[in-house]
Amino acid sequence: MGHGHERRELLRDVVYERVRDRILDGSLPADAKLPSTRAYAAELGLARGTVEEAYARLAAEGYVVGLGPAGTRVRALEVSAPSRPAARHARVPSDGDRFAAGRGLPLGLGVPGLSEFPFEAWARSLARAARRTSRKELASTDAAGEASLRVAIAAHVGLARGVRCEPSQIVVTSGYQSALVLAALATVGPRGTAHVEDPGYPKTREALAALGLRVIAAKVDGEGLRVDTLGGARPALVAVTASHQMPTGVCLSLARRLALLDWASSRDDRWLVEDDYDGEFHYSGSPLPALFAVDRHERTLHAGTFSKSLFPGLRVGFLVAPPGLAAPVRRLSALVAPSVPAVVQRALADFIASGKLARHVARMRKLYARRRAAVLDALREHLGGRAVVEEGSGGLHLLVHWRGGPDDRDVARRGAAQGLGVRALGEYRLARASRQGVLVGFANVPERSAAGAVARLAAAFDASPPPGGP
Amino acid sequence: MGHGHERRELLRDVVYERVRDRILDGSLPADAKLPSTRAYAAELGLARGTVEEAYARLAAEGYVVGLGPAGTRVRALEVSAPSRPAARHARVPSDGDRFAAGRGLPLGLGVPGLSEFPFEAWARSLARAARRTSRKELASTDAAGEASLRVAIAAHVGLARGVRCEPSQIVVTSGYQSALVLAALATVGPRGTAHVEDPGYPKTREALAALGLRVIAAKVDGEGLRVDTLGGARPALVAVTASHQMPTGVCLSLARRLALLDWASSRDDRWLVEDDYDGEFHYSGSPLPALFAVDRHERTLHAGTFSKSLFPGLRVGFLVAPPGLAAPVRRLSALVAPSVPAVVQRALADFIASGKLARHVARMRKLYARRRAAVLDALREHLGGRAVVEEGSGGLHLLVHWRGGPDDRDVARRGAAQGLGVRALGEYRLARASRQGVLVGFANVPERSAAGAVARLAAAFDASPPPGGP
Repeated sequence: MGHGHERRELLRDVVYERVRDRILDGSLPADAKLPSTRAYAAELGLARGTVEEAYARLAAEGYVVGLGPAGTRVRALEVSAPSRPAARHARVPSDGDRFAAGRGLPLGLGVPGLSEFPFEAWARSLARAARRTSRKELASTDAAGEASLRVAIAAHVGLARGVRCEPSQIVVTSGYQSALVLAALATVGPRGTAHVEDPGYPKTREALAALGLRVIAAKVDGEGLRVDTLGGARPALVAVTASHQMPTGVCLSLARRLALLDWASSRDDRWLVEDDYDGEFHYSGSPLPALFAVDRHERTLHAGTFSKSLFPGLRVGFLVAPPGLAAPVRRLSALVAPSVPAVVQRALADFIASGKLARHVARMRKLYARRRAAVLDALREHLGGRAVVEEGSGGLHLLVHWRGGPDDRDVARRGAAQGLGVRALGEYRLARASRQGVLVGFANVPERSAAGAVARLAAAFDASPPPGGP
Repeated sequence: MGHGHERRELLRDVVYERVRDRILDGSLPADAKLPSTRAYAAELGLARGTVEEAYARLAAEGYVVGLGPAGTRVRALEVSAPSRPAARHARVPSDGDRFAAGRGLPLGLGVPGLSEFPFEAWARSLARAARRTSRKELASTDAAGEASLRVAIAAHVGLARGVRCEPSQIVVTSGYQSALVLAALATVGPRGTAHVEDPGYPKTREALAALGLRVIAAKVDGEGLRVDTLGGARPALVAVTASHQMPTGVCLSLARRLALLDWASSRDDRWLVEDDYDGEFHYSGSPLPALFAVDRHERTLHAGTFSKSLFPGLRVGFLVAPPGLAAPVRRLSALVAPSVPAVVQRALADFIASGKLARHVARMRKLYARRRAAVLDALREHLGGRAVVEEGSGGLHLLVHWRGGPDDRDVARRGAAQGLGVRALGEYRLARASRQGVLVGFANVPERSAAGAVARLAAAFDASPPPGGP
């Protein structure tokens, strides 16, 4: 078994790389149809399952889309203007989804260690929920979410994030973006103002702008959001990543937290929405509780997700509203962001209530701490002289930044051509800045692979011309 | 088995009715905790499963909420001001969800015949999808929906509704409301104008208003939406239920369809969104295809749902965009309305692609035709002299209307007190009108129960005082 298994993995990698390289060099253009797994396996003299696994990896990494009976096709990739011939391979997937470009690639963002996911336990929870489906579930229409899941989430966020709430304050959503929509519409509404972090998560500002809000960039420094730069617009909502600023990784300092809460509580039309996207993961010192947990004036809405603690394809998030906003948020969820299929909610409730989520998070926190240390060591070794490694204290990625060196988007593009999932700091920035940087995910990088991946990143850094040159 | 099964059903109904009556008469008030199923079964000398089934039915019908380990509690009911002592029982559930008040009750709306649902087949599709979950699915982040489901939906709407489209024009959403949000933001945006039908579906206008759009009521007559009442606001979106107008049941006439498409195509900032909520169900004559199918100018977005053709708890809907809007809609879906859990999408894709959805819809169409005929006959017998039965030709409900008789909200409240799910036409109306009416669902009423349920409705009608009196 062991030997045959290894041989199969090797063959699968050969098939994967052969197809990937043809996509990257353009000989398999966008929308080109791959041969069927049956035909390709026959052509190569391999087992069909080997080809299927290779195709699955290509799909997971965004190179192809599997259309079932309609065949597997090459996904449209965004071609950036090459700055020199060597950049011919410099393409990144065009999907604008959260961190999607780097998903599955080493050093990519927002990719939990999926190979460690307790898949059997999750499948059992799901199968149990499916078997126990009753007519009650068939007819279920609580747009705010299944009661059992809201009870489980209330207990979970209380323990994990210090967020004390009743299940009635929780609405279950199809991820963070839906929670953000509810938060914005329930507080300032479509004519209101939103302050977003700069640099910050692009889809936060894009979603708020799509809803019609006036979006104003707020500066971020080494303590996080600069509360003193918030203006006097009314009504106003601040979208903040307090635990692990996206993208800089800074944890909002206690002084800033108090200043922010003070700002919000000074008027009754000021609100905060906290994007706690990876708040479960913290590696050094004592983690600060969520902003929601220290807000005595009930101005904060807390948005959480299971994309990081479980897996992105789950597509379940939630919003915790302060008591006074719970009813409006529930009402809005029925109008603009109803909940997800009941069977998955019930499976997740079971997974949380039986302690499996907490055990998984605890195990992953230890694993991520080791992976983070390995990537940190390699970054210091390979880039220490030329860039600053901003480690922060939590989350699933690190920031490497520099001044006067190469353009960060070019480094990220070269990294992508080397099969790396790093993202450019520039993608997260609105205002022009002299600081360049790349975001380096460590969650999906086994310790033994860290040095090699970071060496490739350093090579991409070295090969990139400085801004304006060559 | 047969005899014991019947006895168990009887005992379950006794338990159900005993608890329901105590809720309706107020002796079990809102938030009161029911005894545990174990304790109650012991007290009554019944099998615990019998009590569990009774509780499940109470929950499905909205009387209680089951909080798992926290126990089962009475749901808060909205108490209407009683107009006389006999109306003490006149309460309807406060949940504002689509047709929720009547869910599960005879003559209720939006409740498919769930006892006929091929539950085993669905559970198998779901279990298969769960077993086949791969790392690909764990990491899946296509906010627009799984490719396999979009392929299956494209085939389904082509056959069932004449909607020809590519999978890339489809986004999968958590139901109709999310599809409506995407349609509004992708066309006229939050500063635009929306024309909604009056009478019409309340959550359509409430969602559009929550998004910030100016909402204008458009009149509805015996041919459906009156296109001549649409003003010159720009940009403008018309939300229309063309196949089976909600609530009147009228099918938008061909002349009106052509006029509406003409209106929309006369400017490039006019759009239509078609809420095809029960378009699969048509019983007489030749069904008109969806509005999308006859729009040669690509001004129509088609919103569909599986809540009626499968079951409401599935919480999966979709939006079909014209080719020119496909990319903006996909982009918006990632920002404000990401898709639902991948495992359910893949199960649904399997269910559709294997022909099970089409077979189920075909079977239910025949069953609903018989149930509709039985309810129609009973309505004519019991209310024929006092009200007009507007049968339309499709959908899952009928409209009974009258002038000068009792207030329709009072009739609906009295019907609710009798355990009926009928809804008042007045709930769907913005402008004042002399016409009164009730919406009568037939999908969940077995033929043998039709006469009895309608007789109770007639009694509610007779007991209700006319407007202004007594």
